[in-house]
Amino acid sequence: MKKKQHLFITIEGGEGSGKTTQSLLLKKYLEQKGYEVLLTREPGGTVLAESMRRILLNPSSNLVPLSELFLYEAARAQHVEEFVLPALKTGKVVICDRFIDATMAYQGYGRKLSLSLINRLNIIASFGLMPMLTIYLDIKPSRGLNKAKKLNKESYVGIGDRIERESMQFHNDVRNGYLSQAGKYPKRIKIVETQKTPKNTQAIIRKIIDTVL
Amino acid sequence: MKKKQHLFITIEGGEGSGKTTQSLLLKKYLEQKGYEVLLTREPGGTVLAESMRRILLNPSSNLVPLSELFLYEAARAQHVEEFVLPALKTGKVVICDRFIDATMAYQGYGRKLSLSLINRLNIIASFGLMPMLTIYLDIKPSRGLNKAKKLNKESYVGIGDRIERESMQFHNDVRNGYLSQAGKYPKRIKIVETQKTPKNTQAIIRKIIDTVL
Repeated sequence: MKKKQHLFITIEGGEGSGKTTQSLLLKKYLEQKGYEVLLTREPGGTVLAESMRRILLNPSSNLVPLSELFLYEAARAQHVEEFVLPALKTGKVVICDRFIDATMAYQGYGRKLSLSLINRLNIIASFGLMPMLTIYLDIKPSRGLNKAKKLNKESYVGIGDRIERESMQFHNDVRNGYLSQAGKYPKRIKIVETQKTPKNTQAIIRKIIDTVL
Repeated sequence: MKKKQHLFITIEGGEGSGKTTQSLLLKKYLEQKGYEVLLTREPGGTVLAESMRRILLNPSSNLVPLSELFLYEAARAQHVEEFVLPALKTGKVVICDRFIDATMAYQGYGRKLSLSLINRLNIIASFGLMPMLTIYLDIKPSRGLNKAKKLNKESYVGIGDRIERESMQFHNDVRNGYLSQAGKYPKRIKIVETQKTPKNTQAIIRKIIDTVL
């Protein structure tokens, strides 16, 4: 008896990799194909999880790494049970901007917390839900952070959130973490190098999607 | 080689069991004996953990049980690393209003989450720190809640927090959880029946303390 596959797609990537733009373009594409699509993000996606997000991304939060990890998992449990699972059960496609792989990359490879601990907590907090497909948007951290900063400037935020302010070493570690995750789960995680234009990147994503859906 | 015992005392109990009053009286007593004593509480005890406390106790928070558990552990990790461990390392006595046993009683026996999961997360979030002594203030939930309500009324809060609003069944389950924990760890956890006056209850606590310190 094969378990029905949920239409759960996650978009992963470092700062400035274009996750938001690509998620929106992907949503459009899937809607043209007749799917009902919901976009969401982690940390966040529900009122309560967004209040946890504010603690996580506030630059003045002096969170210790372990507390940060538990807080991400708290936000995840709330988001998955309250929003993601109910949506998937009605047959909708859910595209989520960051999920379990982000926790491995940022808290594991970035903050150096135990990978096996994170893996166990990820499984518990997501109620065992795994993405059917994960798109990892790969961009060099130096390039990505410049893009993110430019974006912040344009939106008058200016200074960047608590994660964006981390060192270049941190962001390089995160990228290595993502690449390592993709190496471990090549069937689920597809690496997409960000192209010169969002349209070109999206074309690659759509080709991958066509082979899966 | 025996590990140096930290002077870490936790006070546990249901709603209206008099934890705050007893902690203050105990602090006084230990200071008279020449100890430097810090009082703290969970969830909370640091600026960041208090911001998590507000999410946890807000009556309009519709937290799912697993998210609640992770959020308690997030607050604990922050509190232990930022506040409790540094204080203990300088030889201070730390009295904490609620700690790991509360999570077993409330999230395990109350919310019916897996006890072994909670136990594992408790150990991780507290960095393995165990109280040298835990005082469990036992009171019948019906009596305790009346006291808590009266207290709220007097301070014009009136309606009670998210936990106080739970059903009588929930509070009975929590009490059974505490008693069961005390049965499992009789050397560490001492059951103190709340007496007619705070002074009488404190007298029992001081006798226990004298045998330990």
